Amino acid sequence: MDKILLDHGSGGKASHSLITNLLVPEFENPILAQLNDGAVFEIGGSRVAFSTDTYTVDPIFFPGGNIGDLAINGTVNDLAMCGASPLYISVGLIIEEGLSVGDLKKILNAMKEAAQKAKVQIVTGDTKVVPRGAADRIYINTSGIGVVGGKTNIAGHNARPGDRVIISGTIAEHGLAVLTQREGITFQSRLKSDTAPLNQMVGDMIAVSGQIHALRDPTRGGVATSLNEIALQSQVGIKIYEEALPVSEEVLGICELLGFDPLYLANEGKLLAFVGADDAEKVLETIKASEYGRNARIIGEVVDDSPGRVFMKTRIGGTRIIDMLTGEQLPRIC
Amino acid sequence: MDKILLDHGSGGKASHSLITNLLVPEFENPILAQLNDGAVFEIGGSRVAFSTDTYTVDPIFFPGGNIGDLAINGTVNDLAMCGASPLYISVGLIIEEGLSVGDLKKILNAMKEAAQKAKVQIVTGDTKVVPRGAADRIYINTSGIGVVGGKTNIAGHNARPGDRVIISGTIAEHGLAVLTQREGITFQSRLKSDTAPLNQMVGDMIAVSGQIHALRDPTRGGVATSLNEIALQSQVGIKIYEEALPVSEEVLGICELLGFDPLYLANEGKLLAFVGADDAEKVLETIKASEYGRNARIIGEVVDDSPGRVFMKTRIGGTRIIDMLTGEQLPRIC
Repeated sequence: MDKILLDHGSGGKASHSLITNLLVPEFENPILAQLNDGAVFEIGGSRVAFSTDTYTVDPIFFPGGNIGDLAINGTVNDLAMCGASPLYISVGLIIEEGLSVGDLKKILNAMKEAAQKAKVQIVTGDTKVVPRGAADRIYINTSGIGVVGGKTNIAGHNARPGDRVIISGTIAEHGLAVLTQREGITFQSRLKSDTAPLNQMVGDMIAVSGQIHALRDPTRGGVATSLNEIALQSQVGIKIYEEALPVSEEVLGICELLGFDPLYLANEGKLLAFVGADDAEKVLETIKASEYGRNARIIGEVVDDSPGRVFMKTRIGGTRIIDMLTGEQLPRIC
Repeated sequence: MDKILLDHGSGGKASHSLITNLLVPEFENPILAQLNDGAVFEIGGSRVAFSTDTYTVDPIFFPGGNIGDLAINGTVNDLAMCGASPLYISVGLIIEEGLSVGDLKKILNAMKEAAQKAKVQIVTGDTKVVPRGAADRIYINTSGIGVVGGKTNIAGHNARPGDRVIISGTIAEHGLAVLTQREGITFQSRLKSDTAPLNQMVGDMIAVSGQIHALRDPTRGGVATSLNEIALQSQVGIKIYEEALPVSEEVLGICELLGFDPLYLANEGKLLAFVGADDAEKVLETIKASEYGRNARIIGEVVDDSPGRVFMKTRIGGTRIIDMLTGEQLPRIC
């Protein structure tokens, strides 16, 4: 490999390889090497979570949201996946010369409303303008700080055999909404991005159970890739049931039409939870009672054979290996 | 104004107007509104500083450094300007498809070495790859977290009449090194970027004096723009002496040749300190004793007339008003 390819940013296998083979060894330290959605460390006796994400979504406006609320919700969710309560957000804008001030205002307004909804404060920022052609309208980096409660110990390496795998709702909506918008495919449908803040949901879950071992929001690379990440980090096998996967009729129909697999499409308002079996039903009910969790389901379990592998029991009774996203099913969607 | 112009990212007057007229009102909150290099807030009894900056420098390699060490030093310095000890850094990469892996490695290596030198840890990151033509090789966002000591109260609005203004060394080197490299103007000279971490220097300064009221690193827009920012934030006048300004022979020569004003050229390893008169000499000596402060000087003082204005006593005895950078002397240099 001598050049960076689009695939290195897909969130799938090539991204994983770039990160584990190049970035982590270079910046060698134990916090980064955990490969969680954020870093957790102590400051003066408090456990602080810190996360960063850059948003390069194309198009910047799509059904259900725009790059602005996406950038706030994404970092809020990354912090929540560490078990943290998100508090403070930074915003770094890269604007292409010529962006209309009207569009910028719409985006800033979406950020403001998303921050209010998630109860976080945007406290610091930076703006760069690059010449026409040196960016695609606007890119946004958000970083965030949250606080992790005393007993909480949620991390990608903590899933263990016997855990139940919960998904907080129907999958693939963000990825499909953005893809169809970008390609100019419009459907007579209510398909839209699921972008939403999940911190309230996670707070409720932690309040009812001490058995939440791992959380991940299945964004780029979709549910399949996130499950593989957890399987690798925790060195466990994960078995999911195709018939249990919540997929809306619309998503299913469009995916069949276009030949996409919803397991690899991005979500921006969903989480995967790995919960001790005894608490799984209780946590599921808590998720279902929350604003963005109505369609939550238990979709599988953690097993002790095949460490690092994910497989799916299909509807017709077979077993299919679920790999990380490879190649570029969806360039640059989140 | 209906479109964003390059000038809005210059760090000068148009940037200031974009930030104060559009961004701050939109995200209205008291921490952001202070317009410091970072935000400072309490977490569990500790005072935490949080800062973000995106680096879009062109060219990405230049005499004295590259975009990698620049991105680490820049955020380390923004935290130091809040009086904080920087601890943790996040890295968000936007890579243009086709960047050579060799170049990426060089940049990552420079980041690693800069982090080691500044004694900060890179703890979390994100990588996006955008299609060819949708970025200019690589952009880097770094955000950072630091801790502010108990009694420290350093902020852009704290400069007060009588304060002495100290610059920690010769000016305009980064801006000129990058500009000449970009334009293909090469000189038989040792001109190079001054990129350097200033946190050790600031730690030493705080250790010897409780009278450090404001600090700022004069990056985009140069010394002139930073002085104007402090004059506005503190609602004071600032008077500087042209003959006191430390400018190297090389910088002076090239600036004269090309018609640039060193007061408006970026620095990436210098700070401006506003220090109570009684402590000014002591702080100056401390800066001079530190690794990057050998050429420090007192260049002016804070006055109580003309709030919000900066003026300069020229070599020939006149007085010149020093405004913020207007227009695009240097597009996209840091």
